[in-house]
Amino acid sequence: MQLTYHTDYALRILIYMMSHPGQKVTTREMAEFYGISLNHLAKVAKALTKAGWLTTSRGTGGGLQLAAHTAHTKVGEIVRYTESRDLVECFTPSTNTCPITKGCQLKPLLFKAQRAFFDVLDAHTVKDLAAEMQL
Amino acid sequence: MQLTYHTDYALRILIYMMSHPGQKVTTREMAEFYGISLNHLAKVAKALTKAGWLTTSRGTGGGLQLAAHTAHTKVGEIVRYTESRDLVECFTPSTNTCPITKGCQLKPLLFKAQRAFFDVLDAHTVKDLAAEMQL
Repeated sequence: MQLTYHTDYALRILIYMMSHPGQKVTTREMAEFYGISLNHLAKVAKALTKAGWLTTSRGTGGGLQLAAHTAHTKVGEIVRYTESRDLVECFTPSTNTCPITKGCQLKPLLFKAQRAFFDVLDAHTVKDLAAEMQL
Repeated sequence: MQLTYHTDYALRILIYMMSHPGQKVTTREMAEFYGISLNHLAKVAKALTKAGWLTTSRGTGGGLQLAAHTAHTKVGEIVRYTESRDLVECFTPSTNTCPITKGCQLKPLLFKAQRAFFDVLDAHTVKDLAAEMQL
């Protein structure tokens, strides 16, 4: 079980920005800090901006800032957004080919396990991730 | 968040075999039933045999059978075996490059969420997956 780099980078971006309150930060600055691909990180930052969790300003002195509500957003909400893939094939009825979906005991079990995973993440906000951190 | 095809196929194999108690089944028979790649399914069956959950006999009338203890194996145990990838990079200290691992609040949160996921799977056995199923 693995989260995508999209989720990993999204959470790293939010942690970095939470630990630089009120500051405008650049994708280059974060990519250098984490030692990860600028292209990949910029792509994820763009997605977070599109979702309304970041705001962006261009030009000299421009950069990314957290939107006002982001600190109080549940971590599970972020991860649900960045993890677009379903846990198993049968979670997407339109493309599912498994012949035992009807009456299958595994599907509800995996669904319950996935919910337990997100319940833990939903009990914490973005703010919690950067508590007492100074980057 | 997505499970590998390895896990998906492993669980499908076990469900199929649980619903054919005492019978020897072939990988071809299961691949045809599920409409999935024989090569992929055979690779997964080999891994399950290596792990001791299946036994195999060759020749005419040969095939795969469940080992005696498999029905009582926790589903989480199977999934832990087939899911070799870590949830995020920092779960593997030897290859981790993230500079904020020390003091990071995200790592223990993801660890807790992953444990919650497996706790649900560990509350059920392979036998539970095929309860009341006839394939």
